[in-house]
Amino acid sequence: MAAKAKLCFIILVLSVLALYSGCAIAKQDPELKQCMHQCRVQQQYDEQQKEECVRKCEEYHREKKEREAEKEGGRHEPDEYWSEENQTSKKLKECQKQCEKLDRGEERQLCVTRCQQKWGDKDRKDQKGEEDEMHNNPYVFEDRHFSTKVHTEHGRVDLLTKFSDKSELLRGIDKFRLAVLVANPNAFVFPNHFDADAIFVVTQGFGTIKLIHEDKRESLNIKKGDVIWIPAGTPIYFINRDNNEKLFIVKLLKPVNVPGQHEVFFDAGGERSKSMFTAFSTEILEAALKTSGDKLESFFEEQDQGPFVNASKEQIEAMSKHEESGGGSPIWPFPLPLPFGRHDTRGSAFNLFKNRSPSQSNQCGQLFEVGPNEFEPLEILDVKVTYANITRGCMSAPFFNSKATKIAIIVDGDEGYFEMACPHVSSKSSKDRRSQDPRSFGREKSGPHYQKISSRLRPDTVFIVPASHPFVTVATGNKNLEILCFEVNIKDNVRYPLAGKGNFVQQFEKEAKELAFNKRETEVDRIFKSQNEEFFFPGPRQHGGRACE
Amino acid sequence: MAAKAKLCFIILVLSVLALYSGCAIAKQDPELKQCMHQCRVQQQYDEQQKEECVRKCEEYHREKKEREAEKEGGRHEPDEYWSEENQTSKKLKECQKQCEKLDRGEERQLCVTRCQQKWGDKDRKDQKGEEDEMHNNPYVFEDRHFSTKVHTEHGRVDLLTKFSDKSELLRGIDKFRLAVLVANPNAFVFPNHFDADAIFVVTQGFGTIKLIHEDKRESLNIKKGDVIWIPAGTPIYFINRDNNEKLFIVKLLKPVNVPGQHEVFFDAGGERSKSMFTAFSTEILEAALKTSGDKLESFFEEQDQGPFVNASKEQIEAMSKHEESGGGSPIWPFPLPLPFGRHDTRGSAFNLFKNRSPSQSNQCGQLFEVGPNEFEPLEILDVKVTYANITRGCMSAPFFNSKATKIAIIVDGDEGYFEMACPHVSSKSSKDRRSQDPRSFGREKSGPHYQKISSRLRPDTVFIVPASHPFVTVATGNKNLEILCFEVNIKDNVRYPLAGKGNFVQQFEKEAKELAFNKRETEVDRIFKSQNEEFFFPGPRQHGGRACE
Amino acid sequence: MAAKAKLCFIILVLSVLALYSGCAIAKQDPELKQCMHQCRVQQQYDEQQKEECVRKCEEYHREKKEREAEKEGGRHEPDEYWSEENQTSKKLKECQKQCEKLDRGEERQLCVTRCQQKWGDKDRKDQKGEEDEMHNNPYVFEDRHFSTKVHTEHGRVDLLTKFSDKSELLRGIDKFRLAVLVANPNAFVFPNHFDADAIFVVTQGFGTIKLIHEDKRESLNIKKGDVIWIPAGTPIYFINRDNNEKLFIVKLLKPVNVPGQHEVFFDAGGERSKSMFTAFSTEILEAALKTSGDKLESFFEEQDQGPFVNASKEQIEAMSKHEESGGGSPIWPFPLPLPFGRHDTRGSAFNLFKNRSPSQSNQCGQLFEVGPNEFEPLEILDVKVTYANITRGCMSAPFFNSKATKIAIIVDGDEGYFEMACPHVSSKSSKDRRSQDPRSFGREKSGPHYQKISSRLRPDTVFIVPASHPFVTVATGNKNLEILCFEVNIKDNVRYPLAGKGNFVQQFEKEAKELAFNKRETEVDRIFKSQNEEFFFPGPRQHGGRACE
Repeated sequence: MAAKAKLCFIILVLSVLALYSGCAIAKQDPELKQCMHQCRVQQQYDEQQKEECVRKCEEYHREKKEREAEKEGGRHEPDEYWSEENQTSKKLKECQKQCEKLDRGEERQLCVTRCQQKWGDKDRKDQKGEEDEMHNNPYVFEDRHFSTKVHTEHGRVDLLTKFSDKSELLRGIDKFRLAVLVANPNAFVFPNHFDADAIFVVTQGFGTIKLIHEDKRESLNIKKGDVIWIPAGTPIYFINRDNNEKLFIVKLLKPVNVPGQHEVFFDAGGERSKSMFTAFSTEILEAALKTSGDKLESFFEEQDQGPFVNASKEQIEAMSKHEESGGGSPIWPFPLPLPFGRHDTRGSAFNLFKNRSPSQSNQCGQLFEVGPNEFEPLEILDVKVTYANITRGCMSAPFFNSKATKIAIIVDGDEGYFEMACPHVSSKSSKDRRSQDPRSFGREKSGPHYQKISSRLRPDTVFIVPASHPFVTVATGNKNLEILCFEVNIKDNVRYPLAGKGNFVQQFEKEAKELAFNKRETEVDRIFKSQNEEFFFPGPRQHGGRACE
Repeated sequence: MAAKAKLCFIILVLSVLALYSGCAIAKQDPELKQCMHQCRVQQQYDEQQKEECVRKCEEYHREKKEREAEKEGGRHEPDEYWSEENQTSKKLKECQKQCEKLDRGEERQLCVTRCQQKWGDKDRKDQKGEEDEMHNNPYVFEDRHFSTKVHTEHGRVDLLTKFSDKSELLRGIDKFRLAVLVANPNAFVFPNHFDADAIFVVTQGFGTIKLIHEDKRESLNIKKGDVIWIPAGTPIYFINRDNNEKLFIVKLLKPVNVPGQHEVFFDAGGERSKSMFTAFSTEILEAALKTSGDKLESFFEEQDQGPFVNASKEQIEAMSKHEESGGGSPIWPFPLPLPFGRHDTRGSAFNLFKNRSPSQSNQCGQLFEVGPNEFEPLEILDVKVTYANITRGCMSAPFFNSKATKIAIIVDGDEGYFEMACPHVSSKSSKDRRSQDPRSFGREKSGPHYQKISSRLRPDTVFIVPASHPFVTVATGNKNLEILCFEVNIKDNVRYPLAGKGNFVQQFEKEAKELAFNKRETEVDRIFKSQNEEFFFPGPRQHGGRACE
Repeated sequence: MAAKAKLCFIILVLSVLALYSGCAIAKQDPELKQCMHQCRVQQQYDEQQKEECVRKCEEYHREKKEREAEKEGGRHEPDEYWSEENQTSKKLKECQKQCEKLDRGEERQLCVTRCQQKWGDKDRKDQKGEEDEMHNNPYVFEDRHFSTKVHTEHGRVDLLTKFSDKSELLRGIDKFRLAVLVANPNAFVFPNHFDADAIFVVTQGFGTIKLIHEDKRESLNIKKGDVIWIPAGTPIYFINRDNNEKLFIVKLLKPVNVPGQHEVFFDAGGERSKSMFTAFSTEILEAALKTSGDKLESFFEEQDQGPFVNASKEQIEAMSKHEESGGGSPIWPFPLPLPFGRHDTRGSAFNLFKNRSPSQSNQCGQLFEVGPNEFEPLEILDVKVTYANITRGCMSAPFFNSKATKIAIIVDGDEGYFEMACPHVSSKSSKDRRSQDPRSFGREKSGPHYQKISSRLRPDTVFIVPASHPFVTVATGNKNLEILCFEVNIKDNVRYPLAGKGNFVQQFEKEAKELAFNKRETEVDRIFKSQNEEFFFPGPRQHGGRACE
C-alpha cells in the first residue's frame, strides 16, 4: 500500500498545481513553494523521492510559466513586469548602466529616459495605471511589443509582435507585420532578401538603396517621405549616406510563405553559419562555385561581421551616385511609361511630399496620401500610405473608414492621445458564442453598447483602427504629432466624418434626423452644423486647443 | 496530516468532476449533487470549509456547463434541452405565457405553435428522435442556432451562429454570416453602419431604405424579391412603410475586420453608452462639434430609445417619396450606365421577379436567379442569389454544384425535407489523419462510402449544401416550399443533374456505362432516360407527388 | 466510506494515466500494465469492479495512443517505428510475405526492396540516423507520409498527408494536397468527381481520360508529360489503354469546400452505400428516376465492384478513339481560339515535352516548364509545372525563387539528395514568440543564423522548397534523377541563382562586394565568376560529378 500511497500523493500534488493553473487562484511563487513544501514534509519519502518530487514541482511550474508567457503573445519579461517595488530600483540601475555603453550622446540620453520611464519611481504609479489601461486595450502597441531581431553598433531592426498575439480581434490583419529599421550614420546594410512583400517608408535621414531585379541593379537615393516597394525575394542593400543623422525606415511586410511570419536571408559575408552560402556543405559549394574547398574556407571564414558595417566616405560617395537603369525596363510595373529609377514618379518609389500639395490642410494639420492610383505597387498589397501632421493643440476630426483598417505609428512629436468608439470589447466573444432564448419574445435587447478605447500616444506607439470604428487623435504636447499610417484593404474605402464639414448626419433627411435623435431638425442641425472645419480641428481646450484660420 | 487529507479530498472531488466532464459519464445535475454531498459529509471540515467546498462544486459546474455550451456552438438552453419530462410541461407553460405578451394575433399564434413544437408532449418523442438526427447533421441549422442581437417591440435582428461552430466541415464558408431582420409595421430602423459587406434580400413586406454614399443620400423603395448591395461601412436607415405587414430581410454578411465576426454601429440617438457618439469623452465631442458640454449633455442624454422606433404616417410618406439621385453617379459600380436609384436595374438593387421569367419553370416549381452577370455587386462577394418555389408534393431534381456552396433558408411553406449524399462523416477526420500501412499491398480498400444526410425543413430552417454534394428538396406540406439561397463561390460553377433531362450519366459513352454500372447500355438508359422533366419533378408518391405537365 | 474510497481509487488510477500522458514520462506499455495491475490488486473490489477498472485502463490507453498518432500528423505505425530489434526481422518477413501476393514481377521486386529498405538489418543503423534527420526536417515527405485512399487489384490512390500536419511552417501551402494515382494495365477508373480544382500530370504510361463538361463529353489521349486541368466537380473517368505499362498520374489538388480536405464522389455503380446514387432513400430515387423501387434495387444492388475494374480490349479500343469535340466550345477557357480536345495546345491539356525545347539544357540536365502564359488554366491555381531531368553525377545550380514555393516529387531515378539553407528551424517559433529586452541597447544580435536542411531523395520522395530559400538537388545514383515540381504562387516570381552564369552577386557594385564580403573585388569575382554553366552543373566529385560540355 505504501507505494500506492506515494503515487497517490504525487498525483495529488500535481493535481493541485494543475487545478490552480486552471483556476488562476495563485499567480505567483506561493504555488510553487507550497508544492515543494508538500514534497519535503512527506515522512514516507526517502531523500531521493523527495528530490524527485521537488524537481517535478519546479518542472511543472516552469512549463506553466512558459505556457502563460506564450499565451500573452510576446509579452516580454513577465517577471520584471510583475516585480516588487524593491526590485525596481535594481532594474533601473541595470538599465541605465546599459545606456552608458552607448557612444552617441543623443541616443544615450534617450536610453536613460526610457529606463526612467520604465523603472523610475516617480512615474511608477501612473505607469502602472496606464499599463492596466493598455492591458485591456487590444489596439495599442508600445515599445515592449517590439522585439529586437538584429542589433549591432551600426544599427538595428525591431519587429512588432504578431497582431493577433495581442488580441484575436486583430487576426484580420495578421498577414501583415510591422518593423522599424534604424541605420546609424554611414552604415552599410548587408545584401539580403526576405520572404515577404514589403513597403518601406523613410521617416528620417538620407540613404541609397539598391535592388537587384533579375539581372539588373537599380539604385534609389532616398529621403524622408519616400515610399518604396520591395517585392518578396528581391535582393537589396543600402547605406545611410549621411554623416550625422540616423536613417529610419518603417516597414510594412506581408510574408509569402507562412502567414504573418517572415525570414531574412543575408546574401553575402558574415561569419560561418551566418551566411546563406555557408549553410551548404563544402562539397556543394565547391561544385557550385567551381572552386576548391580551401579557397572557399578562407574566403568565407574570415568574415566576422554583422549585417550592419561602417562604410568609408569614398564607398558612400561611389554608391550614392545616381545610377540610371541602362535604358532597360523598370522594375515595376513591367511596362511602365517612365524609366525606373526616377524616384518620386511611378516606379519603385514615390515621395509623399515632393511636388505635391497635401490632400487635407488647414492651420490644425496636414494630410499627405499615396494610394494605388498614384503608386501602382500599392495595389498588390491593397494599401494606402498616409502621413498626418497634427498641429500641437489640435485634433483630427472624428471619422471612420468604411472598409480599410489603419495601422498607425507615431514617428514624431512628444505627446498625444487617441480615442475610439468600440462595441463592448469585454463581453464580446461570449456574447457572440453563448446566446439567448431563441426568438426570446419576452426580453428587451436594444442592441450593442459602445465603450471608449483610449491611449496615450508617444513616439513609436503603434495603434490600430479597424474598419467602421470612429476615432480621433489629439496632439497635446509641445510639438506637432506626426503619424505614419498604412491603411490596408483600401479598395472601395470611403471616409465618413462624424463632425465638421461633410459629416454624414447632414445627409439624413428631416424625418430621419427627428426619429433618430428624437429632437426637432433645427436642434439636430445646431449640433451638427456648428463645426465648419474639415479633417483637422482645434483640440479640446484643456489641451490648449488652438484656432484654425 | 489533516490539512493534507483535506486538500487531498478537495482534489478528489474536483477530479471527479473533471473526469466526468471529460468522459461524459454523467450529463446532468447528479454530478453536481454528488459533489456537494461529498462536501457536506466531511467530518473533518468546519462549516466554512464545507461552504467553500460547495462553492467550488458550483463554480466548477457552472464553468463546465458554459464550456459545453460554447463548444456546441451557440446551442441555447442546455438545461432545458436535457430536461426531464416533468420539467417539460413547466417549460411549455412558461413559453406560452411569454407569447401572451405579444399584441398581434398572428405572431402570438406562431409563438404558441412554436412553444408547442418545442415543449408539447405529443410531439416530444418525434422531436427527440429528430433532434438526435440534427445533432449528427452538421449541415442544418434551426431556430435555436439563431441568437437575438436586438429585440424591441418594433422589430428584431437574429444572427445565425458561426458556421464552423456547428461543424469544422463548414469552415470554408466561415467568412459569411447569415442574419434575419424583422421590422414591424411602420417601424423606423435607426441609422447604422456595420463592418461587413452585405447582401440584403427582402422576403416579405414593403419598405424604404436610404444609403449614405460619401456625400449623397440614395433612396430605394423595396419589396419582396429585392436584392440590395450594402458595401461595408455604408450608413443606412430604413422604414417599414406598410401599416399591416411586417418587413422581413434576410442578410448575407461578409465581415471585413475579423473573419466571421461583425459589429453594428448606431450612428445616432440612443441613450448614453448606446450611441457611437457618446462613446467619446465630452471634451472631444465639445471640440469636434464646437458645442458646449451642457448642450451636448442634454442633446444626447434624453434619447432613451432602442434602434427600432415607430414612425408617424406623415414621416413615412415623406421618407418613401422616391428620390432620384440628382444626376450624380450611382453608388455602384461607379461608372454605371444607368442612374443609381432606379432599382430593379443595375445599381444598388435588383428584383428577382420583376419583368423577368424564371430560369427554370414547370408545373412542379420555379427558379429565379440573379448572379454577377445581371447584378454586378454580386461579383464582389462571388455570390448568386436564387429563389426556388417548389410546388407542394413536388421535389427539386437531384443535382450538385461543381464549385459553389449553397446557403439556403426556408422563407415560406409549412413542411418539407431534404436529402444529401455525403462521404461518411462519422469517421472522416480520423480517416484523414490516421492512416494505414504505407502502400499496404495486402489490403483492399474500395474508396469512400456515402451516407444520407437528411432533415425536416420548416420556415427559418437553414441548410448548407457544399460543392459537389448531390441533394434534393421535397415539399411535403400543404403549401409550396419557398427557398432563398445564396450560392457562394459561384465563379465557373456548373450544375450537374443526376436525373431528368440532361443528367450527366447520359454523357457517358456505351463502354463507360457498361463498365461503370456493370449492366448493358440499354438497361442503364432505361433507368436514366425515364425521367423527362428538368430541375423540378413530381415528388415521392407517399408525399402526394403530383404530375408536372 | 468504502464507496468513496473506491471512487477515489479509480480517479487516482485514471489521473495517473492522464498525468503520464501529459508529462510523457512513460511512452510504452508499462503505463498500461501498471494501471491494470492496480486494478487487480484492489482488495475492496469485487470481480466485476476489477474488470470494469481494467477495461477503463485499456480504453484510456487506446484513446491516448490515438490522440498521439493524430498529433504526429499521419505518422503511421508508431509501434513499428519504435520497435525493438527483435521485432524487426518479424516485420521484414511479414512485409515480404505481402509482396508475394503481387502478380507482376516488377512490382513484386520493388515491394521486396522496399521491405528490405524498411526492415532490413543491414541498413537499419543508417536508416535510423536518417529517420532522425527526417524527423527534424519539416520539408521532406516519404512513403510513410502517404495514406492509401483506394486500393484494389487494378489500381490505387495514395494521398500525401496535409502539409501542416508535418510542420506549422508549411501551413502557407495547406490549401494544396498532393496525390498519386496508379492504374494497372487495362484498368478502367470509375466515373467520379471531387470537390477540388486539380492539375493532373502523367508521369508514366498511356491512357484516355474523359471529362463531362456541362452537356458535352470531351476525350483526351494522355501520355507522359501531359498536364491536365480538371475544374472542381467535373465528372471524369479514364482508362489505362496500355496492355503492359502502368499509368501513373500525380495530382495537385486545391479543395474548394474545406481548406486542404477533399472528397471523391463516385458517380456510378459500386455496391450499395458505395455509390453516390444509393445514398438517397428509395422513395427519392423512384421519383427522381421515375422508376419503380424493385427495378432500382436490382439495378444498383448487383454492382459489387470497386472503383477500378478491368476493361476488355474492345472496350479500350472503342474508348480511346480520339473524339473531336463536335465543333463546340472548349472546356477551358470558354472562348478559346483552338478547339478543345486538341491536347498539347491551349485547352484542357498541355504536353511538357511535345514539340518544345527545354527552357534550360546542357550536358548536366534539362528543364521543361509550363506556366500560366502557355497554359491558361494554370493561372487559376497560380501554378507553374516544371520537369527537371538531372544527369547522373550532376546537380542543379543553387538558386531561390523569390515568391513561389516548390512542391517537388521524385518520379524517376534511384538516388540523390538535396540541400537547402534555412533560417534556424529549431528555435524559430520560440524566437518569434518570446522575446528580448525591448530595444535592448546592451546586447549584440547579429541577425539570423542558417542551417543546412538535407535529405536523401528516392522515388516518390516529396520535398518542399519555400519561397526565398536557396537549395540544390544532386543526382548521385546510376540513373538520371527526374523531378516533377508544382511551383505555387508563381505570379511575379523571379529565379535568383547563387552561382553560375547570371548569379546575383555579380550585380553588386565594387563597393558592395567589398563591404559585404570584406574582400577585394577581384577576390570576390574569382569566387563568383569561376562557374560558367547555367542551372545544371557537374556535381560534387565524390558523387562522380561529370563535365557538361
